[in-house]
Amino acid sequence: MEFFPKIPTIKYEGKKSKNPLSFKQYDADKVIAGKTMREHLKFSMAWWHTMIADGTDMFGVGTMDKKFGAVSDMDVSKNRISAAFELMQKLGIGYFCFHDKDLAPEGDDLASFHKNLDIVVPLVKAEMDKTGIKCLWGTANLFSNPRYMHGAGTSCDANIFAYAAAQIKKAIDITVYFGGDGYVFWGGREGYDTLLNTDMGLELDNLARLLTLSRDYGRRNGFKGCFYIEPKPKEPTKHQYDFDASTVLAFLRKYNLMSDFKLNIEANHATLSQHTFQHELVVARINDALGSIDANQGDPNLGWDTDQFPTNVYDTTLAMLEVLKAGGFTTGGLNFDAKCRRPSMTHEDLFLSFIAGMDSFAFGLKAADAIMKDGRICDFTKNRYSSYESGIGKKIVSGDTTLEELYDYALNLGEYNVKESGRQEYLEDIFNQVMLSAD
Amino acid sequence: MEFFPKIPTIKYEGKKSKNPLSFKQYDADKVIAGKTMREHLKFSMAWWHTMIADGTDMFGVGTMDKKFGAVSDMDVSKNRISAAFELMQKLGIGYFCFHDKDLAPEGDDLASFHKNLDIVVPLVKAEMDKTGIKCLWGTANLFSNPRYMHGAGTSCDANIFAYAAAQIKKAIDITVYFGGDGYVFWGGREGYDTLLNTDMGLELDNLARLLTLSRDYGRRNGFKGCFYIEPKPKEPTKHQYDFDASTVLAFLRKYNLMSDFKLNIEANHATLSQHTFQHELVVARINDALGSIDANQGDPNLGWDTDQFPTNVYDTTLAMLEVLKAGGFTTGGLNFDAKCRRPSMTHEDLFLSFIAGMDSFAFGLKAADAIMKDGRICDFTKNRYSSYESGIGKKIVSGDTTLEELYDYALNLGEYNVKESGRQEYLEDIFNQVMLSAD
Amino acid sequence: MEFFPKIPTIKYEGKKSKNPLSFKQYDADKVIAGKTMREHLKFSMAWWHTMIADGTDMFGVGTMDKKFGAVSDMDVSKNRISAAFELMQKLGIGYFCFHDKDLAPEGDDLASFHKNLDIVVPLVKAEMDKTGIKCLWGTANLFSNPRYMHGAGTSCDANIFAYAAAQIKKAIDITVYFGGDGYVFWGGREGYDTLLNTDMGLELDNLARLLTLSRDYGRRNGFKGCFYIEPKPKEPTKHQYDFDASTVLAFLRKYNLMSDFKLNIEANHATLSQHTFQHELVVARINDALGSIDANQGDPNLGWDTDQFPTNVYDTTLAMLEVLKAGGFTTGGLNFDAKCRRPSMTHEDLFLSFIAGMDSFAFGLKAADAIMKDGRICDFTKNRYSSYESGIGKKIVSGDTTLEELYDYALNLGEYNVKESGRQEYLEDIFNQVMLSAD
Amino acid sequence: MEFFPKIPTIKYEGKKSKNPLSFKQYDADKVIAGKTMREHLKFSMAWWHTMIADGTDMFGVGTMDKKFGAVSDMDVSKNRISAAFELMQKLGIGYFCFHDKDLAPEGDDLASFHKNLDIVVPLVKAEMDKTGIKCLWGTANLFSNPRYMHGAGTSCDANIFAYAAAQIKKAIDITVYFGGDGYVFWGGREGYDTLLNTDMGLELDNLARLLTLSRDYGRRNGFKGCFYIEPKPKEPTKHQYDFDASTVLAFLRKYNLMSDFKLNIEANHATLSQHTFQHELVVARINDALGSIDANQGDPNLGWDTDQFPTNVYDTTLAMLEVLKAGGFTTGGLNFDAKCRRPSMTHEDLFLSFIAGMDSFAFGLKAADAIMKDGRICDFTKNRYSSYESGIGKKIVSGDTTLEELYDYALNLGEYNVKESGRQEYLEDIFNQVMLSAD
Repeated sequence: MEFFPKIPTIKYEGKKSKNPLSFKQYDADKVIAGKTMREHLKFSMAWWHTMIADGTDMFGVGTMDKKFGAVSDMDVSKNRISAAFELMQKLGIGYFCFHDKDLAPEGDDLASFHKNLDIVVPLVKAEMDKTGIKCLWGTANLFSNPRYMHGAGTSCDANIFAYAAAQIKKAIDITVYFGGDGYVFWGGREGYDTLLNTDMGLELDNLARLLTLSRDYGRRNGFKGCFYIEPKPKEPTKHQYDFDASTVLAFLRKYNLMSDFKLNIEANHATLSQHTFQHELVVARINDALGSIDANQGDPNLGWDTDQFPTNVYDTTLAMLEVLKAGGFTTGGLNFDAKCRRPSMTHEDLFLSFIAGMDSFAFGLKAADAIMKDGRICDFTKNRYSSYESGIGKKIVSGDTTLEELYDYALNLGEYNVKESGRQEYLEDIFNQVMLSAD
Repeated sequence: MEFFPKIPTIKYEGKKSKNPLSFKQYDADKVIAGKTMREHLKFSMAWWHTMIADGTDMFGVGTMDKKFGAVSDMDVSKNRISAAFELMQKLGIGYFCFHDKDLAPEGDDLASFHKNLDIVVPLVKAEMDKTGIKCLWGTANLFSNPRYMHGAGTSCDANIFAYAAAQIKKAIDITVYFGGDGYVFWGGREGYDTLLNTDMGLELDNLARLLTLSRDYGRRNGFKGCFYIEPKPKEPTKHQYDFDASTVLAFLRKYNLMSDFKLNIEANHATLSQHTFQHELVVARINDALGSIDANQGDPNLGWDTDQFPTNVYDTTLAMLEVLKAGGFTTGGLNFDAKCRRPSMTHEDLFLSFIAGMDSFAFGLKAADAIMKDGRICDFTKNRYSSYESGIGKKIVSGDTTLEELYDYALNLGEYNVKESGRQEYLEDIFNQVMLSAD
Repeated sequence: MEFFPKIPTIKYEGKKSKNPLSFKQYDADKVIAGKTMREHLKFSMAWWHTMIADGTDMFGVGTMDKKFGAVSDMDVSKNRISAAFELMQKLGIGYFCFHDKDLAPEGDDLASFHKNLDIVVPLVKAEMDKTGIKCLWGTANLFSNPRYMHGAGTSCDANIFAYAAAQIKKAIDITVYFGGDGYVFWGGREGYDTLLNTDMGLELDNLARLLTLSRDYGRRNGFKGCFYIEPKPKEPTKHQYDFDASTVLAFLRKYNLMSDFKLNIEANHATLSQHTFQHELVVARINDALGSIDANQGDPNLGWDTDQFPTNVYDTTLAMLEVLKAGGFTTGGLNFDAKCRRPSMTHEDLFLSFIAGMDSFAFGLKAADAIMKDGRICDFTKNRYSSYESGIGKKIVSGDTTLEELYDYALNLGEYNVKESGRQEYLEDIFNQVMLSAD
Repeated sequence: MEFFPKIPTIKYEGKKSKNPLSFKQYDADKVIAGKTMREHLKFSMAWWHTMIADGTDMFGVGTMDKKFGAVSDMDVSKNRISAAFELMQKLGIGYFCFHDKDLAPEGDDLASFHKNLDIVVPLVKAEMDKTGIKCLWGTANLFSNPRYMHGAGTSCDANIFAYAAAQIKKAIDITVYFGGDGYVFWGGREGYDTLLNTDMGLELDNLARLLTLSRDYGRRNGFKGCFYIEPKPKEPTKHQYDFDASTVLAFLRKYNLMSDFKLNIEANHATLSQHTFQHELVVARINDALGSIDANQGDPNLGWDTDQFPTNVYDTTLAMLEVLKAGGFTTGGLNFDAKCRRPSMTHEDLFLSFIAGMDSFAFGLKAADAIMKDGRICDFTKNRYSSYESGIGKKIVSGDTTLEELYDYALNLGEYNVKESGRQEYLEDIFNQVMLSAD
């Protein structure tokens, strides 16, 4: 059964095409910087937003049909699988990401949930085998059930911690079964609503315990991929412990988890923490922790996670520049953690939205490559620091000096001042001109 | 010569007093929880705001007289010393903090700056000896001179790095001479304005190098106090590397500086990073890194560092609660990194502002003590986590379990759900009632 | 049937009481400034948050039981009525506010919705008659049904405009039947998600048309109360047209609606628009447009409407100060547009939360009265502007001067400067001392 | 004497040029939509940022030379004139804007200030006559002198009100002498720091009085141009009365000033008030109040006015789209209220920054024109509202219906729902493709 009968396979038609159901920028087999666009971008579909989210928000019920003609919960889950693979094939998307709860109904307790999963998960696997579509990463939903109201690994109730552990075990098993390259911990409700009732020290210790147990289990049971933490500063809790990339790095270093964990950077979470998307990617990259990307965008005037499809080409270009500088994705990819706006309620909007997002990142890749080839911006930055390559600068970098030596050196400089301008406006102009000429 | 002839020594007159020039809450010798209020609070004057800042802002020139009758730069510096100690004595403030540049004119180059310092610094020391007033901490101003436009330790120019090192050496020397208990690194312009011209990896490595060199110098030369980093997320640069407490902890852990460095938490910097003041104090405390406090307050609707005198008693109570939980200050104290509003331009306003701030923290101490003695909030929090003291919870905390065991345990729980409410509103109400009855 | 059998009638026990189920500040019959606290405060229960909201948020399903033992939608609606009046009586709350949709199930279409309302509404009226509890205001929910995805009065679809008009007609009828003193327009989805598809000029004209039609209908059909617009800057849409008090005033003036409409100011909406609650109240007051108040509080670090029960006594004191300055409420009151935190999931939390909110506003009233009686702050402000009471100032205020005259006058002033300090810190200190001594 | 000897006249060289000192997008004589780019864009230089601002910020002194070789204040003022006209000629900028205080030293009192102005102003006029460069608008600086610490028209001191009036009179005289097309009121310190000492009602009445007096004087004395108010939400005061476009419209309507005043919309002020630049332009346009534009950009992660040169082509395209929809500028233009970043401290950076800004707006014009010619986005929006062109929709718009009729109509619709998607993502994609293909 075809779920999107009016939607053809989406083809690249070039930037002058006015066919809404075509790619204008994403030419999957086109080679850029030694790899195809497909290999660079590793697009992934997020099961929750694409197959499940129906437009519900805090002020209104759903506007979109995500039941795909089925009635019972189990049938809905099954139809979503077929619809998902049809959508991914028509769009040429090679990966998907999932929460345990996305795939099967929860049932009344953990046993029935896992029973449901055992029925549905092989059906997903069968489609994967048939289509060649892969799992980018899996995760467990440890936030929507009321039992996680006080957190999961950071719950004040040890039974809930155990419940979370059980869900993670099963989700890791499924991820391994799917051959997934990654397993994500997004902090759900790991945070606090008020410090008046919170023992932050114990909660963070416990969170580290949960991650350590999970890491150990995964490594013992065939998971060879990468564990990721996905930073987010707030929402649903007042304060999420995984506030931003640096906060997560502090946590990983404190609890000795750096060797198994990297970061899954989400654009909208970055901006909620008052950073740019690029900033978070750089922080991850220079700490050898750039794992994967949740591709979306927020609204700088809104204070919640809007999870919009990414269409700002400045952001996509800067993001792909960081990916290129990091040498490309290894286990990670570009997962569209994005949902259609509530009034974009048709199935056609789903495809139009993915096209918008994929074209925006495809353009970003081309523009990033053009910027690297143009070389002016990278060269400017490199030259700026050349004073550290010889003389006193070299001694500083190599650790071969003291405060006393630097004191004497500086006193001899006399009324020394900075010689070189930072040239921000000029660099922004180069960026524009190269980006706007990219193709 | 008396600089504030109309201002008497400020005395405690109790909360019903309508004498503006009296304390209503701060009764220095009153004993609370085993120590005098003076010992708990360790109030400190910030030389830059109190003796120098004249109300200049980005849209207007100064409104306040901070020249204290002198004309030449050197005489101004000297008069400020007398005025500062007169002010501290009249207010009963026991500590001060300073930047190198606060004390003497910069002159034309580093040599003349240091010559000027060598004249002025002994005059400060003489007043200290005479009055018993101490130095809480010292620091070097590595941001206002144009030479630091690209940063100091993170400058792209190695000569500027050397210049910064030289200033730090001298500032450490002065701090040791004063017997100061702390030395602060506030990140000034250690950050970036645009990532287009920035090598963040190198800049952070260099910053760590500068701090390591400074630590080593200090330890070799008699500095036994604590080094502090003071987090701030932005301003003057677009992004300051010392964004918040967690970011600084990530940095200290990465570069192995945890044993010598703690945090100097500023209230207004906390809120600029979208945290509460209390949050930053808790993060510092649970990482054994609560060093000292810059006491002020910002405006939740403004996006810059307003450095207002602290008058919100919720904030002062929560802050003192954290200080009490941490066992009180050791090397640190409460430094009023606060300035009078630009239209509060008289010398009398200086005193009125300190009184407002000191009374607010004095009340905060009394209220925090009352909350601890009342016990209901602390007990509630303690009991919330009691499931970790036995059974599966105890095994989790002690590391004596596996994901498999937790999985089996959870499956046996059946349809388990959280039992206990978080009771936020109730706790907020207790907080109010206890605080409003504090005395 | 009693729905809260464990909850007694809540009594005033004074501020030293540790009985959670008692008032510590709210002594309903106590007379302050010539009226009882009950008359000053006019507390109101919001049907939607109290009787319906179950803790659902964007990341999780409900945690609270708001079905009150019933199963069918209609029975749930009926049980909520009994529970609501039990709750209001036990708390001594004299008013309630409602959306049409709060009272009865929507059914399949408008006709069945209205049929359901016709069954339920008389049951509410019967309880009102029995208890003496009144309706503060009514409104129509024009945002949660998918048909309002593009707005109601600002929908691009004229049929939806008609649908909204029909709901409003019925809601006004019910409000008149209840003898309600107010009718509120909260902008729901009157706004835009993207300007790319929006004709803002037409949408605002249409919104004015809907309000004008509603006003005309109400006035023809016995509604003698006040129409209110409730400003909110964002959420659920990216931009809500009723951004803040000033924006609404611009709208009311443009479309000649000032004589029938006032403002319903919500604390949390104020802070979302980067204003203080007090600011919005002052703007309303000086435009003779302070109608009613939605009492709650937000979190300065969160960018969405958290609708917390109000517990910050600075905010409640400043709010009651404005209410007193305005001469008290006429048609309006203090409606708790507030919900328990998701982890505060028990029925007991409902009562504890109302107690916290009512005590906070009761304290605010006492503190505001104390500040007015103390007089120092009001007098300071009045004296500040005394130069406008004579001489050139009087001519300015009376309009009896010209730019030329002022030019000549100023030239004669010579090097004139401001004489008086703004004394912000001193005034904040007085505020603290008077507030903390209030009783 | 040439002040920028190394800078040639900047020429258009096309987008592939790598010559930093050339235009890549701005081809002044190119005709687009019936007018030259020069006529569309009406670029203007802001005297204060370009000729005066030296990189001083709250944390450091100036980094740039803006004295142009002179020593005495008067000579500096004179040299700035020559340098300004050289710069404008080399860049092909046809307009400038000024504050009174930008042109001449203030001296000791108003009389000496005006004497200085009388010397310098004719020198400016002579350069205008020689070069054909015009004055876009003038204004008076009513915020930087300490006397305005409590505001100007809103000062609590009537003498200061008179002082402000006197400055405005002189500034209007100069603007008329220059043949300026506009006169701007930017709210400087018209706002408050604390409501505790503020009578907002009186202050706003007085502000309206000052504007009315100024309008009357201007109209009596040959000013035929447009008065503008420039909204800004905060900074330097906590709250600026001219918060945003809507707030100013409320003010203008209340005080009957709509016929003489329009808005000067600044991009960075728009974003500080949590609006997009486009939003503020639309609000101005649909109220017939789009007067002029201050072209710059802020940083979405920073809470102060950064006044960066505009380089984001989304913003410039959307802005020019609104200008085209409004029929182009009449009295207004694009004034670069922008300054070089502090580390962009050379004279060459000045030119590079203007080039970046002018090219960005030139590209924006071309892209906006392409979007209008493409037609898809405008047509989509127009069609969306077609239901208001006939039937019930037409009756709504024409005012020929009642709530009762709409009620009956809606009841007959049955289970009606919205038919059309909002298509946000699709429209964003069209926007991208058309913009990225613009030339």
